[in-house]
Amino acid sequence: MTLSTLLDLIGPLPAGAGAAARTHLDALTKPPGSLGRLEEIAERLAALRGAPPRVERPVILTLAADHGVVVEGVSAYPQSVTAQMVENFLHGGAAVNVLARQAGARVVVADFGVASPLPPAPGLVVRAIGRGTANVASGPAMTRAQATRSVEEGAGLAQAAIDEGADLLGTGEMGIGNTTAAAAVVAAITGADPAAVTGRGTGVDDGTWRRKIEVVRRALAVNRPDPGDALDVLAKVGGFEIGGLAGVVLAGAARRVPVALDGFIAAAAALVATTLAPDTRAVLFASHRSVEPGHDVVLAHLGLAPYLDLGLRLGEGTGAALFVHLARAATLVYGEMATFKSAGVDGPRPP
Amino acid sequence: MTLSTLLDLIGPLPAGAGAAARTHLDALTKPPGSLGRLEEIAERLAALRGAPPRVERPVILTLAADHGVVVEGVSAYPQSVTAQMVENFLHGGAAVNVLARQAGARVVVADFGVASPLPPAPGLVVRAIGRGTANVASGPAMTRAQATRSVEEGAGLAQAAIDEGADLLGTGEMGIGNTTAAAAVVAAITGADPAAVTGRGTGVDDGTWRRKIEVVRRALAVNRPDPGDALDVLAKVGGFEIGGLAGVVLAGAARRVPVALDGFIAAAAALVATTLAPDTRAVLFASHRSVEPGHDVVLAHLGLAPYLDLGLRLGEGTGAALFVHLARAATLVYGEMATFKSAGVDGPRPP
Repeated sequence: MTLSTLLDLIGPLPAGAGAAARTHLDALTKPPGSLGRLEEIAERLAALRGAPPRVERPVILTLAADHGVVVEGVSAYPQSVTAQMVENFLHGGAAVNVLARQAGARVVVADFGVASPLPPAPGLVVRAIGRGTANVASGPAMTRAQATRSVEEGAGLAQAAIDEGADLLGTGEMGIGNTTAAAAVVAAITGADPAAVTGRGTGVDDGTWRRKIEVVRRALAVNRPDPGDALDVLAKVGGFEIGGLAGVVLAGAARRVPVALDGFIAAAAALVATTLAPDTRAVLFASHRSVEPGHDVVLAHLGLAPYLDLGLRLGEGTGAALFVHLARAATLVYGEMATFKSAGVDGPRPP
Repeated sequence: MTLSTLLDLIGPLPAGAGAAARTHLDALTKPPGSLGRLEEIAERLAALRGAPPRVERPVILTLAADHGVVVEGVSAYPQSVTAQMVENFLHGGAAVNVLARQAGARVVVADFGVASPLPPAPGLVVRAIGRGTANVASGPAMTRAQATRSVEEGAGLAQAAIDEGADLLGTGEMGIGNTTAAAAVVAAITGADPAAVTGRGTGVDDGTWRRKIEVVRRALAVNRPDPGDALDVLAKVGGFEIGGLAGVVLAGAARRVPVALDGFIAAAAALVATTLAPDTRAVLFASHRSVEPGHDVVLAHLGLAPYLDLGLRLGEGTGAALFVHLARAATLVYGEMATFKSAGVDGPRPP
């Protein structure tokens, strides 16, 4: 499906979506609203489905790609780690594998442009747009055609997962250097100062962190991305996996399947997606608040409040996997609790 | 077991407990510390066990009791709801049942002093200390002997659960009027102003809320509980289920089994327990931050930071049930992730 066809499928939710769910939630044996944000999740999931909420087949899409900007020395880890972690994902030994197994979620591992060649392996989906982006500190990360293709490939992956029954999509990623690209994307679209949206990624020291901020400034100065043109931003300072995740988000929006955003990289991808199609917001759930300072900037921009605040800064889809428990809890509360009437429990005293 | 015997069993953790766990966590394929508070949970659980952390048989103890103070009109719901909700627990239709099932946790439902007689039922544990407390606004809630007994009975329940293999205890409660009692306990022990620790409970209106604050003030003025004598506080302004939960917490501390505190009532019980035995703190995990304003006061007093912040204000053990997913995630990360060495992943670049 072309990107423009995909965008045409995204529209607002029907008026009153979720109202029936609200009425049902208020009939359950608890003071109205006393399950707080679980009730909000249930109501939003119901509004998307136009039916009782369901989270039975969650899928986490973990897209990997490399970033030419690593030559600027912005990461604590060598570029080789991206490919090595893909192997780790395929063997089930990474954090996202462990947390997804716990949550009953399938993990789709996709190569969107890892620098070193990956041996073919069962379970590895290859959608490489290139062998890593170019260095954004001296020119565009990729061509506009590549940017478009990365979004379309991500959307295609998500559509396939939805066709196979996925009822919740989680966004995951791996890519040494990708907090630098995400910071540049976020600064470009929101207008935030690079210093406010550039963090320590995998844990760089003070000197590297200051250099990283300067690299983001340089990327913006050299490339001059157009804040209103998300594909321009993605092409000039983004990354292949960021484009892919923007596609995942858009596919979720087109099919009204909820998307659990993970951390900062996913948030940057969501920003690209919502700039392309603002109605996309209706499917987004901010799983958690990342340690990356730019994450809050994006969530505020998107009008999303995170559900978990656990000091995570790993990515991979780990926060999205943890959110699955909350989303499922919301659906079970909705579907399994007794009502005041069915349980013979008295309601509030007359005032 | 008598309370004094129980208290004698509670001592500090050995020096260096958790150090081996920290070393193991840092060898896993993730930047050190990047799983944030999941790593903290894993380390604390390992320190308690002196072995790799494990959460395989969580048990939530939901203790129900009534409160004479309801005659002051402090709750939005009639007293009949306490007994009706116990029936709902026994039939599996309440929120705590749903969330505990999801988390693979067993729920123990115990009558610690419900006002209306409950028909015997399979699964109902009867440890009633009385048929509801007396009205704290005009005298003590219970005798000191009853207070001691409530703690001992709660501890006995928890010890039985631990003997059957429970490796995590969750605190739950039900009792119309119990946020009033909890507020009085918290104000008495911490010295906080009643207005700062009295909330809207099940959702009272402004007028009732102001009356509730005055009732807490009156309870303290009439009874003059001794802040340093937790049993005196419990007897004068507490509740049977609050005493029972204090016993659950103490039993966890004596056996070094982690205790997942639920909301405000559980926090008041933990305050009673830590006043009796300060080393109890080592086993406490603050599952979530309740909407009740007094909850933050207690957590600050105990030096605990909550893991979930979902706007819950239901009690029953619902927040503790949700925390089980996080605790189990921590144990799975600890036990199932590959190490840098085993997965052949490069470590950080040399600086």
